[in-house]
This record gives sequence, C-alpha cells and structure tokens, in this order.
Amino acid sequence: MADLSPEARAALCDAAGPDGWSADADTIAPRLTEWRGRTLGHSGLLLRPQGVAAVQAIVRAAVAHRVAIVPQGGRTGLVGGALPVPGRASVLLSTERLARIRAVDADGLTLVAEAGVVLDAVHAAAAAAGLRFPLSLAARGSATVGGLVSTNAGGVQVLRHGTMRARVLGLEAVLPDGTLLDQLGPLAKDNTGLDIKQLLIGAEGTLGIVTAAALALAPVPPERIVAWAGVDSPAAALMLLAALRGAVGEQIESFELLPGDAAAMVARHVPGHRDPLPGVPRAVLIEVAGTGIAPGLEAALAAHAPDSVVATSEAQAAALWAIREALPEAEKREGAAVKHDISLPVAAVPAFVARVGAEVETSFAGARVFAFGHLGDGNLHYNVFAPPGGGSAWVEAHGPAVTRLVHDRVVAMHGSISAEHGIGAFKADELARLGDPGKLAAARAIKRALDPLDIMNPGKLAL
Amino acid sequence: MADLSPEARAALCDAAGPDGWSADADTIAPRLTEWRGRTLGHSGLLLRPQGVAAVQAIVRAAVAHRVAIVPQGGRTGLVGGALPVPGRASVLLSTERLARIRAVDADGLTLVAEAGVVLDAVHAAAAAAGLRFPLSLAARGSATVGGLVSTNAGGVQVLRHGTMRARVLGLEAVLPDGTLLDQLGPLAKDNTGLDIKQLLIGAEGTLGIVTAAALALAPVPPERIVAWAGVDSPAAALMLLAALRGAVGEQIESFELLPGDAAAMVARHVPGHRDPLPGVPRAVLIEVAGTGIAPGLEAALAAHAPDSVVATSEAQAAALWAIREALPEAEKREGAAVKHDISLPVAAVPAFVARVGAEVETSFAGARVFAFGHLGDGNLHYNVFAPPGGGSAWVEAHGPAVTRLVHDRVVAMHGSISAEHGIGAFKADELARLGDPGKLAAARAIKRALDPLDIMNPGKLAL
Repeated sequence: MADLSPEARAALCDAAGPDGWSADADTIAPRLTEWRGRTLGHSGLLLRPQGVAAVQAIVRAAVAHRVAIVPQGGRTGLVGGALPVPGRASVLLSTERLARIRAVDADGLTLVAEAGVVLDAVHAAAAAAGLRFPLSLAARGSATVGGLVSTNAGGVQVLRHGTMRARVLGLEAVLPDGTLLDQLGPLAKDNTGLDIKQLLIGAEGTLGIVTAAALALAPVPPERIVAWAGVDSPAAALMLLAALRGAVGEQIESFELLPGDAAAMVARHVPGHRDPLPGVPRAVLIEVAGTGIAPGLEAALAAHAPDSVVATSEAQAAALWAIREALPEAEKREGAAVKHDISLPVAAVPAFVARVGAEVETSFAGARVFAFGHLGDGNLHYNVFAPPGGGSAWVEAHGPAVTRLVHDRVVAMHGSISAEHGIGAFKADELARLGDPGKLAAARAIKRALDPLDIMNPGKLAL
Repeated sequence: MADLSPEARAALCDAAGPDGWSADADTIAPRLTEWRGRTLGHSGLLLRPQGVAAVQAIVRAAVAHRVAIVPQGGRTGLVGGALPVPGRASVLLSTERLARIRAVDADGLTLVAEAGVVLDAVHAAAAAAGLRFPLSLAARGSATVGGLVSTNAGGVQVLRHGTMRARVLGLEAVLPDGTLLDQLGPLAKDNTGLDIKQLLIGAEGTLGIVTAAALALAPVPPERIVAWAGVDSPAAALMLLAALRGAVGEQIESFELLPGDAAAMVARHVPGHRDPLPGVPRAVLIEVAGTGIAPGLEAALAAHAPDSVVATSEAQAAALWAIREALPEAEKREGAAVKHDISLPVAAVPAFVARVGAEVETSFAGARVFAFGHLGDGNLHYNVFAPPGGGSAWVEAHGPAVTRLVHDRVVAMHGSISAEHGIGAFKADELARLGDPGKLAAARAIKRALDPLDIMNPGKLAL
C-alpha cells in the first residue's frame, strides 16, 4: 500500500503547524469510510490547517513530495468524493479549523465564510442579520461551505434560488501549485477574464482547495405557505406548476414530486409522521414565499389539485416538510435499493417516469421503482427497490445493470447522470462511459495544465 | 502586415462552403472598426459558416494553417473584443448564418438559440410562448446570443435575474482544436465533472466559438410598476433599496441610480424627453414586478423617497425607461468623457462615489464625474467629463491617468475594473496590471492547454 515517506510526513506536518495534524488511527479510521461503509484507499495522516497560509504550505509540501491531498469537509457526500483512492500516498486535509465567518454585509446581502463553516452556521449568521441563505439540504448540520461549493450543492430551493453556483459571488482557493486564487470580492458583476472560480465550483477538490466563499444572501419573504397536493400524474403536476407560475411568478420556493404512497411509507417506518392525503396517485409538496401569494396558490390548487392540504400553522408546515426529509430514512428501512440522482429537461420528466419505470420493472422482475425529487428542476432521486426477499444481495448482483439501463435512458433524453450529488469516485466510470467526449477531453487537458502531478483529490471526476 | 497565405485562404473558404465567405473589401472594412472608429489589426477574409460542422471545419483549417479566428456577432461590444489584432494572420468568423431558434419548451421554461440569433428575436420567441427572457440591454436589436454568452452580458435586470451566466443552462461550442463541446441539455442541475461551459461564458471567444445556447426563460409577472424616486444621496438610495426588499422580497427588477441632473441632461440633448423630478440630488429608476407589490413599493417610497413619481400607464413607464436608455447618447452630446465600467461591493458604493469623486475632481481640475448605473448590482458607469473646452484632446491626454486613478481606487475597495463590458483588447493592459496574479496565471495555463497555438481571438483578456 502506498504510504508517506518519513520526509513527506515531516514536511506536511511542519506545513500544517504544531496543532495542525494527527496520525492517530482512531481519529483517522472514520475518515477513510463513507456513510455506507465503503472504503477505497488509505491514509495515515490527517492535516487540520488553521489559515490560508498553512493550506498553501501544505500544498507546496505535497507537490514537493508527490503526495495526494484529499480535502474533507463535513463528509456528507454520497459519491466517495472525500475518500483517498488506492495506489497513491495520500494525506487527508480537513477544513475544520477554517471555521470563521469573516464578514456579513446586510446592505450588500453577502456573507464571507471560510470553508469549514457548517451550513447551519451560515443560516444562523444570515438570520442574525435579518436575512436568509436560501440553500438547504438534509445534511445542513454537518455539510460545510467548502464541500457545498466543491460539489455545487443543490437541495430543495434550487427552483427559485439556484444551486450553490448561483449563491457564490466570490471565492478564495489554493490552486494545485500552492498559489492563492483571490476572487473573494462579493461582486454581482465582474467580467475580468476567464472566471476561474466557476471551474472550482463543482470540481470536487480536483483543481484546488476552496478556503473561503462570498455567498449571496436573500431577503426574508414576508409570507410563506406550504401545501401538500394530490395529483394524478407527473404531467398533472407540471400543469399545476405552470398554473402556479402564472399566478405567483417566480415566488415558488420548492415543488417536490413524491409517489402517492411516500407519506404512508414514512408513517410506516419513522415514528411521528402521518400521511396528510392517503390514496392519491402522486403528491406534490409545495412552498411558496413572497407577497400576495395566497390567492394565486389557492386558485392554482382549486383548478389543478382540488385534493390538497394547505398548512395553517408553522407547525403544520414543518410537519409536511418533515415527511419529505424523512423519506431517505424511510426508504432505507423499506428495503435495499439501487439509487440514482438524475435530472432531465423538465418537460421530459412525465415520459421518463412512465416509460423507463415500465422498462425497469419489466426488465428486472419484482423490482419496484420509487422516484421522488425536485420536479421544478427536473431532478429525480430515482431509486429501484430490490424484489421482495432480494435484499442487498440483489442490489449487489443487479445494481450495475439497473444503473446502466437508467443512465442510458437518461442520456438518450438529454439528461444528467448526476444532478446534485456529483461524480466523486463511485460514478467516475459511468461519467467516462457516458460523458460528452469533448467536455471530458477539455476537462482532462485543464486538469493536466493546472495539476500536472495529479496532487489534488486524484481518482475523482474521471479526470 | 500579416496576411493569409493562398493555401490558408483556400482551406478556410473550402471549410466555410461556397456561400460561406467574402473577400469583398467594402463588406469587410466596417468589421475591422469598432463603434468609436478604432481599428487594431487587419483581415482580408470574412467567413459565414452555416451549421456547426462548418464551424468545426474552419477551426481545423485555421489550426492547420496557424490562422487566428476572430468571432463576430452583433459587434456591439465596447472593448474591442471583436477586432483582429496586429501581427497575426486573421480571419473574421461571423455567426450571422447560425440564426435558428432550435426549440422553445414552455413547460421547462427553456429556449435553444443558435449563436447568431439577435436578442430581440429571443425576446419575441419567449413572448410567443407566453414567457419572457429577462435579460435586456440597449443593443438588443443587434447583440447576438453568441456575443451575449461570450461577454457574460448584464443589463438592467441583473439584480433579480442575474447576468447571462445565470440564464445559460446549456451550451454548444467548437473548442480550439475543432472538437464539439455538447453541453446543450437544458438542465437546471448537472454535476458531472468540471463545468467547461462556465469557462466559455465570458471568455470573449478566446477558448472556442459558441454555436448555440439553451437559455432559461421566466414567467411573465402578473403586475409591473415603474417609479422615479428622488433621494438625497447614494446612501439614501441604499436605504430605499433595503426597505423595498423588506416589503416586496426579490421582486425588484431594476434599481438604477442616476445623478439628479441626468434627466435634465437627456431633455437638453435628446428630443422628446422631460425631467420627471427636477432638482433632486439623486434619482433612482425602479421597476418592481410580481404579485402584491403596490403596497410595499408605496410604503417604501413614502418612508424613504417622498419626492417620487409612480408611472400610472404603460406609456409613462416607457417614458421613464426611455430617459435611462437615452443617457449614453445624451452623455456623448454633453461632451468628451473618460469612461469606466466598474463594480463594487454594494455597501461600498456610497463611500466610493463621495471619496473618489472628490479625488478625481481635485486631481483633474475642471473635470466632472458623472456616475450612473445598476446600484443593486454595485455596477456604476463611472464617467469623467473633460473640463469645459477640453474636449477629446483632453480625454486623449489625461484619459490614461484618470483611468489609472479610478481603477486603483476600485481595486483597493475590492471592486472590478470591468463589471459588464468585458476586457477585450482595450482593457487587457489594465487587467494585466491589476488582476489577481493567481487568477491570471491559471487563466493563461488553461488558455495554453486548450489553445496552444493561440488561434482563438488572440490579443484579448491579457491571456
């Protein structure tokens, strides 16, 4: 197994500073394993730099000694993007001591946070300034700014507020040769040459280490309404979405499509939930936020989803959202499944759900498709349950074939095989198989130009 | 003067096809000159490819014969980005025959347009689908999709809808080695590796030729209100903006700060205008669009800008916007000026306007600062009139020193020396002088990796 030379170890520890490293096996072990228990490669050293200069020193030492750097934030990713890979002497670089919120500018609606700041803390700092940071996801208690930027995180408010890319106004990062990229100015408009920071957003640490970001905040909407609507089909859900857009414009915060039995499944497996609308073919969880929104929402629901529930209190609204958030946990308890994170052109979602669902369930007898997600973005978490009794052995045996079928159909319909989770290590082969060759060739040329020794998070993104 | 060899000329004409080229001097001459009459280099050949395959063939021929390609769209840019530069054998590539709108998807709120489609035509196609494309600028009758993407165009709706980058969901381009980048899928979420298309947005043609884009449309807002408000200072304008945000959330479409005498200047020089609010220290042109907006706008104006005019008809709204749009023309007639297109962190705008205005007018006796622009984005068109009688000779003599002072102060306050116009050829020296060294080095490394022969629009962006 590739490991660090004593010289490399000494140089890296020196760069990280006296309190900046750990070689303790118990500390490191959980950092080599992702949430499903998978491990890929090894590392015997964890660095915890405090400050950007220490990150630069570490990168320079890694270059000098040909050591791979694996950046780690909250380690909430789902694609093995924060794991070292076999065959490379690797060091883990945790951003946990880059944890300062450097500035909050309420006039400019911006906040500058270091890479290790947890999303919850960003929300709290925005709220303290009478504003909000409109990007959220279930892992908000551990996911960090650096990871959110590096994976271009999505979540439930993308429909209105965009992915992390849309929320990043400025970026500070250490590039693979140790130079500092200083694009931290929180400017809405800045057309001064190739926008290098855009390349780092979603690069999963392969082009450098994000050390801080200037984030765009938003005003707190005066009103907010949450509803749970029953519809006959994904196509009917799209009609509801169009009607809602006509009525309240861009004030639709979330529009989540769920199987009709999703809430029942949550109620079955997770205590404290009940199905707000039993027996509907499909459900949509809607949040609208802004001004003058109630009449438009009510009219759209009356016309397109008469079977619906509008929350009349914050507690009811929270209960509806809690169902959505408990879904992954309920799914896990329901049984083993092959999971996908896909996106499609929005208008193609109904056809995809109908056709590919039938094809999967025909091709894999007894398997059951369970698809839910952010319909407004065309993003589905498209999961396929093993046949009764199949369990994880079935998933192990048939998973790759299921995935190949799903991904092939996605690509044929001009969709994406990774909407929001990224590629990391686990999906690199599928990206190499299905990615646009022109895009892959350009990406590899850029990687070679900026990181010729492949120091930064190797084995990710099919680079 | 560098010119094409007969072999190069033959290969390029062949690649462009029988109707795809012109060597007519009268046709080419205006394409070598920008709107202020400046010329840099020369070209004797204009190519007009029809279709992406022809663009690829041209790029391959250019690589084989070491010919520089200068892409041209509507040629409405202000920084010489579409001019050939001296010392290189160059060919002009016009996108005028890539002029098809390939698809409009009203459900998905997307439209796919080829590079040569004019912005007006995008607006019309969106309107025909009951939607809108919320990016506009004065040159909308000639500016093309390819140019808008390549310059990451801004305009008067960035506050709410972002720059062109935020409106581009997908991109098709020919890279500098002739390979096709096919990222045209109109997906709101797509995290599949380095997002190469982001690098082409704002690259001013230096990394390839944009051939088509998938653009994000938006619903037509149910209501729209336009107002002209008098305020005491930029700081007071920011207070009005904050109050308005609190009242109507993100439904503020435009928030344009103008000198108090701007409308009077327009009325003086351009027929058909009158000053809606004579004698105010500063004016703000506001557009709010959405639902339930009137009470919030009225309350914010009553509290922070009691001296204001709200348009009560479409004609009145149009008249207010016409003043804003006539401003560049009025400025030109008012006298010679040194012009800048800067952005600052929003909260820094009042201090910049006060301090730097005084410094410029003290350092250059008789000069007068005239700054207006998109306050909500921190973007000012910061122009300095020559002293009375100075004229363009003064601008010629003192322009560089004025610009150096303004740009130095911008950079010191973490602003940008090009907010929306880009760098092109004219600002390349200033970018080289003031740009972040880490960003410039990375940009140059990427340019060398993707375009080692410097075929694509050389002499731009300080690459």
